[in-house]
Amino acid sequence: MTDPDRPFDDIRALLLQMQGPDEDAMAEARERDAQLTKPPGALGRLEEIAAFIAGWQGTPHPHADTPLVAVFAGNHGVVAQGVSPFPQSVTEAMVANFTAGGAAINQICKTFELSLKVYELALERPTGDITREAAMDERTCAGTIAYGMEALASGPDLLVLGEMGIGNTTAAAAIYHALYGGEAEDWVGRGTGVDEAGLKRKADAVRAAVALHREHLADPLEVLARLGGREIAAMAGAILAARMRNTPVVLDGFVVCAAAAVLQALDKTALDHCLAGHVSAERAHREVLGRLGKTPILDLGMRLGEGSGAALAVAVIKAAVACHNGMATFAEAGVAGKT
Amino acid sequence: MTDPDRPFDDIRALLLQMQGPDEDAMAEARERDAQLTKPPGALGRLEEIAAFIAGWQGTPHPHADTPLVAVFAGNHGVVAQGVSPFPQSVTEAMVANFTAGGAAINQICKTFELSLKVYELALERPTGDITREAAMDERTCAGTIAYGMEALASGPDLLVLGEMGIGNTTAAAAIYHALYGGEAEDWVGRGTGVDEAGLKRKADAVRAAVALHREHLADPLEVLARLGGREIAAMAGAILAARMRNTPVVLDGFVVCAAAAVLQALDKTALDHCLAGHVSAERAHREVLGRLGKTPILDLGMRLGEGSGAALAVAVIKAAVACHNGMATFAEAGVAGKT
Repeated sequence: MTDPDRPFDDIRALLLQMQGPDEDAMAEARERDAQLTKPPGALGRLEEIAAFIAGWQGTPHPHADTPLVAVFAGNHGVVAQGVSPFPQSVTEAMVANFTAGGAAINQICKTFELSLKVYELALERPTGDITREAAMDERTCAGTIAYGMEALASGPDLLVLGEMGIGNTTAAAAIYHALYGGEAEDWVGRGTGVDEAGLKRKADAVRAAVALHREHLADPLEVLARLGGREIAAMAGAILAARMRNTPVVLDGFVVCAAAAVLQALDKTALDHCLAGHVSAERAHREVLGRLGKTPILDLGMRLGEGSGAALAVAVIKAAVACHNGMATFAEAGVAGKT
Repeated sequence: MTDPDRPFDDIRALLLQMQGPDEDAMAEARERDAQLTKPPGALGRLEEIAAFIAGWQGTPHPHADTPLVAVFAGNHGVVAQGVSPFPQSVTEAMVANFTAGGAAINQICKTFELSLKVYELALERPTGDITREAAMDERTCAGTIAYGMEALASGPDLLVLGEMGIGNTTAAAAIYHALYGGEAEDWVGRGTGVDEAGLKRKADAVRAAVALHREHLADPLEVLARLGGREIAAMAGAILAARMRNTPVVLDGFVVCAAAAVLQALDKTALDHCLAGHVSAERAHREVLGRLGKTPILDLGMRLGEGSGAALAVAVIKAAVACHNGMATFAEAGVAGKT
């Protein structure tokens, strides 16, 4: 039972239940890989991905048949600080665009036959302006984390995370500044395309928010509640729920990685089941990936969010598992090995 | 009519007929892109790719509906110098594997619904050992270039090039050494996985070949005939034929780029219709791409050949054109633009 005065206890309990990958399945996958009709190592990253997926799915036959792209949308009080060139109403309008099939993520999902589910998180109730108050109280944050766990309900074999939320690169930057230190300027970037003055307003907002909440930022879950956003909290829940089911996760860009960073700060092994889909053009994302210990699959200068970079990376994952499962072995094909 | 004593005249004549992309189609595609429901530039490389394909296909609606992966296979006399850990018979065995559907390229083509065609180039007659004689005489080379042009016969909307040929990274390295200078060691790499001694034999073979033919290497087509291979000559023909039809080309790795490098040495605009699918793990490939002026779409440590890296890059191209054609505009979606 949850103690209503300690809403994060359930989350902390789940972190203690995390398991590692199935080493036997991974070893068996690697053994098969060594027999496939190619020089050892010649598929590079694809071979690593196939073994990774095998380990987390707990089978020597990794699959990417039922990936779910879960896009979480939230609104942010901090937009009052002039941190985005787009009005807050765009969050809801873009959710409608997702539903109508008109966004980039819809086209990418269609191209690679990926399921897409959009989770609207109380768009009519933006989080508090983090420069003046906490984004969420602990209960709201814990409840939103729990809600994000629903993304695993349909049992996808791969979870791909995305987000939409005008102002959320500012919330993400505040989380990084709180977790990793440095200067506010180190973590802010152009987001959807702010000008120089907007960039300065973002840095000012991040600096002010971290200063305001500084007494409460030793606990990463407090960082999430005070500086984050609903979609960021929900994605943290989705990543954790995926771990409970041994479902591999593909992270998208700067904002998704903020949810991941909170979990990693709680437990350094919490992201072992996650792949970085891409490195985005948002300035600090490469630095963040380094801190998360992740090498991105793609580097295409994308900075759209919506899960677009991660969903595109699923194409590489699909190819990796297709090669792993479908290729003939040297023995089957009657091909001579090295002399 | 071809003068039998001047077999390369037809090739040179085609080079004079090359056209640039359709600037109007490209501009129209860029104009549409600016109206799509995303911040300008947020799809990064995908936006550039869509405009590039639009320009070469001569339509504001770029497509990747009928890509052809054309894999050319040849055998190389230089294997007598101990440059590969695999026996020459593997070329033919891998062609059989392609036909049976057991190779990596088959799985990648299946994953992304790409047509695959394999062109066997007289596997029973390896080219001459380039350390002792010319790989081909001029007529054979010109005839093979012409044969490679057949890859365009079915009218694909995108041509993806791949190759198979035990020993062909040595031939490719010899071409680069002849075209770009430096030391033989600068251009050789592990190929399918030679050990240190094998790597030294490759460098020795490349050095010896370029020294032997040095009086004849001012003409890039002579470089191709004397140091190349049948599959490399055929791919040069395919790239040139694609240009005649304004069909964009996706280059694969180290060996495919040697065919491209010969054309670029003949005319610096000859590769304007080509994208680099990936940068391979073969050591000198990154340097080669720099000289070709190409930024690779993917960087996944692959070094298999078969067109595998280029075919995987088609997934990105498919996503790029799907976003370009399928996304709603701000007006259509009723999404507000920047404030």
